[in-house]
Amino acid sequence: MIQVHGYAAQHAGAPLTPFQFERRAPGPHDVQIEILYSGICHSDLHQAHAHWGAELFPMVPGHEIIGRVVAVGAHVTKLKPGDYAGVGCMVDSCRHCSACEEDLEQYCDEGATWTYNAIERDGVTPTYGGYSDQIVVEERFVVSIPETLDLKGAAPLLCAGITTYSPLRHWKVGPGQKVGVIGLGGLGHMGVKLAKAMGAQVVMITTTPEKGRDATRLGADEVLVSRDPAAMASHAASFDFLLNTIPVGHDVNPYLALLKRDRTMVLVGALEPLQPALNGANLIFGRKSISGSGIGGMAETQEMIDFCAKHGVVSDVEVVPIQQVNEAWQRLEKNDVKYRFVIDMASLRGEVA
Amino acid sequence: MIQVHGYAAQHAGAPLTPFQFERRAPGPHDVQIEILYSGICHSDLHQAHAHWGAELFPMVPGHEIIGRVVAVGAHVTKLKPGDYAGVGCMVDSCRHCSACEEDLEQYCDEGATWTYNAIERDGVTPTYGGYSDQIVVEERFVVSIPETLDLKGAAPLLCAGITTYSPLRHWKVGPGQKVGVIGLGGLGHMGVKLAKAMGAQVVMITTTPEKGRDATRLGADEVLVSRDPAAMASHAASFDFLLNTIPVGHDVNPYLALLKRDRTMVLVGALEPLQPALNGANLIFGRKSISGSGIGGMAETQEMIDFCAKHGVVSDVEVVPIQQVNEAWQRLEKNDVKYRFVIDMASLRGEVA
Repeated sequence: MIQVHGYAAQHAGAPLTPFQFERRAPGPHDVQIEILYSGICHSDLHQAHAHWGAELFPMVPGHEIIGRVVAVGAHVTKLKPGDYAGVGCMVDSCRHCSACEEDLEQYCDEGATWTYNAIERDGVTPTYGGYSDQIVVEERFVVSIPETLDLKGAAPLLCAGITTYSPLRHWKVGPGQKVGVIGLGGLGHMGVKLAKAMGAQVVMITTTPEKGRDATRLGADEVLVSRDPAAMASHAASFDFLLNTIPVGHDVNPYLALLKRDRTMVLVGALEPLQPALNGANLIFGRKSISGSGIGGMAETQEMIDFCAKHGVVSDVEVVPIQQVNEAWQRLEKNDVKYRFVIDMASLRGEVA
Repeated sequence: MIQVHGYAAQHAGAPLTPFQFERRAPGPHDVQIEILYSGICHSDLHQAHAHWGAELFPMVPGHEIIGRVVAVGAHVTKLKPGDYAGVGCMVDSCRHCSACEEDLEQYCDEGATWTYNAIERDGVTPTYGGYSDQIVVEERFVVSIPETLDLKGAAPLLCAGITTYSPLRHWKVGPGQKVGVIGLGGLGHMGVKLAKAMGAQVVMITTTPEKGRDATRLGADEVLVSRDPAAMASHAASFDFLLNTIPVGHDVNPYLALLKRDRTMVLVGALEPLQPALNGANLIFGRKSISGSGIGGMAETQEMIDFCAKHGVVSDVEVVPIQQVNEAWQRLEKNDVKYRFVIDMASLRGEVA
């Protein structure tokens, strides 16, 4: 076993405090990674506060992990010690269902094994995430990080990046299309950068002109203020695709009016009831669709990393030491970050040393 | 002008009473039709009761029209006097927008001209529907009815038939697929017959075992009682397509659990808020979709008629004289019909004579 240092919540709502635990020694197919950066995702807060039910404590959050490979098992082929590697939201899946066979492990019929707040497929071992100094993961669930990518800005690609990249690819966003990204947070700012890099005309749809100005800096061609009914009406039936990153329940009806006939709005953030209620008429008139999409498979995650390296896309991050993680969470709850906190794990090694 | 006899509601909620009015004499592109049968659609009641707002009175309902051609304009090519003809929900559209150019007149950017409770594109002439003895319609919005089709059973094809046929075709339903039809009424019973004729394995999803038995008679391979949680769980993640014909707001969440990954449920009936609210998680986990679909274009309506003639598909109807239309409406409000009322317009001519 490997001794690991991290930060954990000991019970629902508890502050994160130092926590020492063990991980398995790398098996023949495993990669052992010294964690350099770990992004803070809003879902970390949801789970640590037990908003979604069935949470496991102590909980070491973190599923946007960038590190350096320190050891590999005998059968590992795609990584070697010294390489940079990434780990996202999953560390395992059943590997034999149709989803796994189609490289869509996130939709595994038996349920993927999440990077933290889950139980390994042995049925007993809890998973602990990236707010820690080392992790051991099977090769299939590790991506290779090119040296040219800014490492701290790359950490959020493992969740916020793939969550927005996957639907943009699946619904074939590209040149000649007018694409709206709804909501400017960790997900939304990646959506703008990625849709722009894919060649689309990108409109940031947000609540205030102030947020809009920053979206323009990120690459948005235009800003649509959703609280301005006249502006919304002027964009009616003009969008080829809408990426909806709002992380809470909300009224989807005004956004459906923005879609052209036969087009789709994809939800990636709202794991909640959408209220006020969706009106069926807003789908029937124009044969429109609402879909959802969750992260991406491992092959597509590697494709996304390579796409970001090629196009120079990383997340806008604010780097914090692990000792300030509770303050960072408090600020994140107020959306006070542009656009993703990333923990520099060197701070943890300094503490342990 | 042509003198026409029909039945109309004089104001919202009024019973239908005899009403005499004029229609235009057929122009060079028009077809004049002696109406033989007119189906009763649930939307007739909604509009006559002004449930949807902006209704026009007097209102002559009816958009499931079968008749015999009595005269055609000089430029009409696809029909001649003596032919059987059908008219559905639309009698005109702008004809130059992308939807019209793609034979999707029902999604016309400028709005289709509905067969009743609407204003012709001249901006002044009200449209009057099929509860009448004659109608004059431009050739593009008239379909040819093969002599082999049972005429009274064919009337509901013009709305209930095309409303269910179009999404089954658009989402490519066919052999090897497990297809669920949700709700057994005028739309649902056509959905079962058409999906079966397209070669799918058809499951009727309804509220009671009694309704299910009748669905089996209509051709359903299996029945799933939606109020039985164990039965619903046993069909989880097994459907390739769901055609949701429920005509009122309802909880869509339990049905989404029936879909396989990457599959779609299409709403064709519920022009209302869907409550309790749709939970975004039910789309995100499995990359599922909810879409809507409204009737079908004129080319597809002809395709549907020809498909029904080839496969011997018509609606199960109960024929009533026009003098009993108010009683038929009352029974329809209680779902007391298997599965569509059709008015025999010979009864109107007898009254007028």
